[in-house]
Amino acid sequence: MQGIGEWAVQRAQLSGDKVGFVYDGRSWTYGEFNDRTDRLANQLRSRFGVRRGDRVAAVVASSVECLEVLFASAKLGAIFTPINVRLTAPEIGYVLADLGAELLFVHGQFAQVPAALAEPGVRVRDVVTLGEEYDTLLADGSQEPVPSQVDRDDVAVIMYTSGTTGRPKGAMLTHENLRANAAAVTSAFGLRKSDVTITALPMFHMGGLGLHTLPFIYLGGRNVILPSFDPTAVLDLVAAERVTQLLLVPTMWQAVTAVPDLERYDLSSLDCALTSGAPAPIAVLEFFADLGIPFEEGFGMTECAPSVAKLDAEYIRTKAGSIGRSLFGIDIRVVDDRDQDVPVGTVGELLVRGDNVFVGYWMRPEETAEALRGGWFHTGDLGWVDEDGFITLVDRRKDMLISGGENVYTREVELVIAEMPQVRDVAVVGAAHAKWGETPVAFVVAKDDEDLTEEAVIAFARQRLAGFKTPTSVCFLQALPTTATGKIQKNALRDRVAACASDG
Amino acid sequence: MQGIGEWAVQRAQLSGDKVGFVYDGRSWTYGEFNDRTDRLANQLRSRFGVRRGDRVAAVVASSVECLEVLFASAKLGAIFTPINVRLTAPEIGYVLADLGAELLFVHGQFAQVPAALAEPGVRVRDVVTLGEEYDTLLADGSQEPVPSQVDRDDVAVIMYTSGTTGRPKGAMLTHENLRANAAAVTSAFGLRKSDVTITALPMFHMGGLGLHTLPFIYLGGRNVILPSFDPTAVLDLVAAERVTQLLLVPTMWQAVTAVPDLERYDLSSLDCALTSGAPAPIAVLEFFADLGIPFEEGFGMTECAPSVAKLDAEYIRTKAGSIGRSLFGIDIRVVDDRDQDVPVGTVGELLVRGDNVFVGYWMRPEETAEALRGGWFHTGDLGWVDEDGFITLVDRRKDMLISGGENVYTREVELVIAEMPQVRDVAVVGAAHAKWGETPVAFVVAKDDEDLTEEAVIAFARQRLAGFKTPTSVCFLQALPTTATGKIQKNALRDRVAACASDG
Repeated sequence: MQGIGEWAVQRAQLSGDKVGFVYDGRSWTYGEFNDRTDRLANQLRSRFGVRRGDRVAAVVASSVECLEVLFASAKLGAIFTPINVRLTAPEIGYVLADLGAELLFVHGQFAQVPAALAEPGVRVRDVVTLGEEYDTLLADGSQEPVPSQVDRDDVAVIMYTSGTTGRPKGAMLTHENLRANAAAVTSAFGLRKSDVTITALPMFHMGGLGLHTLPFIYLGGRNVILPSFDPTAVLDLVAAERVTQLLLVPTMWQAVTAVPDLERYDLSSLDCALTSGAPAPIAVLEFFADLGIPFEEGFGMTECAPSVAKLDAEYIRTKAGSIGRSLFGIDIRVVDDRDQDVPVGTVGELLVRGDNVFVGYWMRPEETAEALRGGWFHTGDLGWVDEDGFITLVDRRKDMLISGGENVYTREVELVIAEMPQVRDVAVVGAAHAKWGETPVAFVVAKDDEDLTEEAVIAFARQRLAGFKTPTSVCFLQALPTTATGKIQKNALRDRVAACASDG
Repeated sequence: MQGIGEWAVQRAQLSGDKVGFVYDGRSWTYGEFNDRTDRLANQLRSRFGVRRGDRVAAVVASSVECLEVLFASAKLGAIFTPINVRLTAPEIGYVLADLGAELLFVHGQFAQVPAALAEPGVRVRDVVTLGEEYDTLLADGSQEPVPSQVDRDDVAVIMYTSGTTGRPKGAMLTHENLRANAAAVTSAFGLRKSDVTITALPMFHMGGLGLHTLPFIYLGGRNVILPSFDPTAVLDLVAAERVTQLLLVPTMWQAVTAVPDLERYDLSSLDCALTSGAPAPIAVLEFFADLGIPFEEGFGMTECAPSVAKLDAEYIRTKAGSIGRSLFGIDIRVVDDRDQDVPVGTVGELLVRGDNVFVGYWMRPEETAEALRGGWFHTGDLGWVDEDGFITLVDRRKDMLISGGENVYTREVELVIAEMPQVRDVAVVGAAHAKWGETPVAFVVAKDDEDLTEEAVIAFARQRLAGFKTPTSVCFLQALPTTATGKIQKNALRDRVAACASDG
């Protein structure tokens, strides 16, 4: 099996009449899904000239159509990039230009897309809007199966991630990466084809697409797709669709368990609840413990498609704070700054190797060589491993915070604020937030004779950055605290966040 | 993950304290298993000079040690060949010589081995007997992990199979083939790491090794290993070890369900019963239907490591006679004698393609090219596929019969009997047998003035062939029935088997 496009073909053969997807009050069998991806693939090829290696982008909410565009592209050996719908026009434009994408699928409600298409360097020639236009395209498409000319090492998906460099870069994930992730996930979580999941995490993140959406197609389970998160919708769907596996990020879990009259929802179908990105609040753990439903934690990153580690339910308390152990088939190491292994219990950088590890950043040979030196992915995360193989991260990926399940790279926010003519210096850190887990807080040094307000900084940032990246508060300082070597002391800033907020 | 040797390493990391194997009244954790394979691998390398690509052979019953030799060899990139313990000295000698094996592991009870080592062409330098000698070898071995230098496309196992050419040939299975089979099996059967299986089929066949032994190690389940089949031992172990998955061949199922006082055995732990090789008798199906335990059929062949197809429990009656549908990740086609696809419902040769399909026959480039022409494995089996993708075989692989779960290739038996000076012509076909399913029956044409008895033919064959290959009856004819083109009409002979037996 070379490409993931064959998953659709084989699922149609083996489970053609089975409902694979429930979305928007409708259901799709695996047979329909494969038929539709064939029609779309034929249209991509004949009408838009899409060839192996071409990039097909999308600004769409989680939907069956998003998966259809992915699988149709995969059948042709083309590369699919779903773009975060929360990004601003300049951010989307940057991604489209970097990709060199010529074809874009959109949901009409994302009003920033027309402006994004006008950004410098964007070469998109064709835009297909989901809904009537898309449906007509499919209806007109040939039903002929598409002959597959895909190699397992071809890139299937490019997912953008920011990292410490400030500018988003595209992590290239091959068909083999996606297969290895699906195999690791289905085996580690003991998934069976009778399982039903809700895709509540957005498909434009590997956390949503790689966990659980794609593994469920690989397995032949059922995906209930939520276009946007809503806690009562999740609870209603669990009962209505007899969902067995539920994956949410901690802020979503918090919202779900805070729903009034929670006890009137039927959660008896759940075999397992799973959180990813960060540990779940104790109240959530206790809620599921009372119900007798195992609660587990997964850890992953875009570059790993995304699975890396898992904290099994039986260890959720005894190994609390750990992200668990690496999944079967995935190797990890902890090394010092010369890439030498450190002893058990010693902090170092976490490296990952496995068939799920990406092959590089799109058009970034230097960053690729750096990230994958020695054949291991250098995560940038600091942590240690105990005698039993449990990994504990002591510091989040450098200068990253997670706001409402979204990664925010502080360097990206800093670069934007630094563009303000009144700003001399800026540093951004994460601050705890009751609803979002964390939010960005900016420390700004204004130029001597400039009059700068918190509102002005936030307004400037909001025009250029997605809402989740925009600082929720700004604190003005005379100078940023630095080390002897001139490096900004982010820890010192983090200590001042509370004071800043109360000052402001 | 390149080689299966890493399965042992990772299982030790993830499930080090879990009992992975129960055998001979003892149990082995995955940690011990990995430690022992490291010790053995170091000894293979330092004491016997085993290097990547070398062949390590074994004439051993199913045992933990058999798996240790496999995994230790795999860690070094060496190739493991387990040889059928029922073969005669000349048959074993032929395999050892063909392999060019220099190291052999044996269980002392197989008395034919010393004579096998004296056969022409055998180059074995070292023989290690399981028991005290083996245990000492391991105890003296270094516990250092073996650095893996294995490529996923390296050959891990060579399994001998006869086929229509008469002489056994070695099917080369790579690490990737074994991984793909394990992934297909665990997913198709919905196996979880909490599952427990009995390895009752011998490990010197892919039916035993590839189903379930290796997938269970891949998954981290538990293998209960039976060195030789005994129906009451199977029933006792199911209850004692809370076995969840039980795979037997039809003759074994028949023996198990014929055990007196069957109702006093506790089979409540079984989630699934599985037969392979041939459909199970109706009485067996009814027995499990009464118990409410799903009963499924698997179909495989050595060259496919071995999984090809599966008949799910829900179809066991409505699609009776079919071998089911190909597993996820495995493609099949049915073609005419010019390798062109035939329409649905039309009989042709079954072809198989997938990551589990072998890479060729050891040292047989011509037969490899023929078998794998066009990138598809030509099984030699004739069958057809219905609209739902269910495969029905209309003729067993040319001139093969199955006796007590063992494949018997009639050409091999014919070649041996033809060596008798009194024999002018011979043809062998399969005859139904109450206990073994089938047995070989020989039709012999003696030379004009020769006096030849059934006993003499059987005695001659028994000296040269394993018991299951030796004809159980011989029928003398004036001439063999042939077609207009001179081909022997085996169907006509099969029709005469009953008459022959009553004559004799």
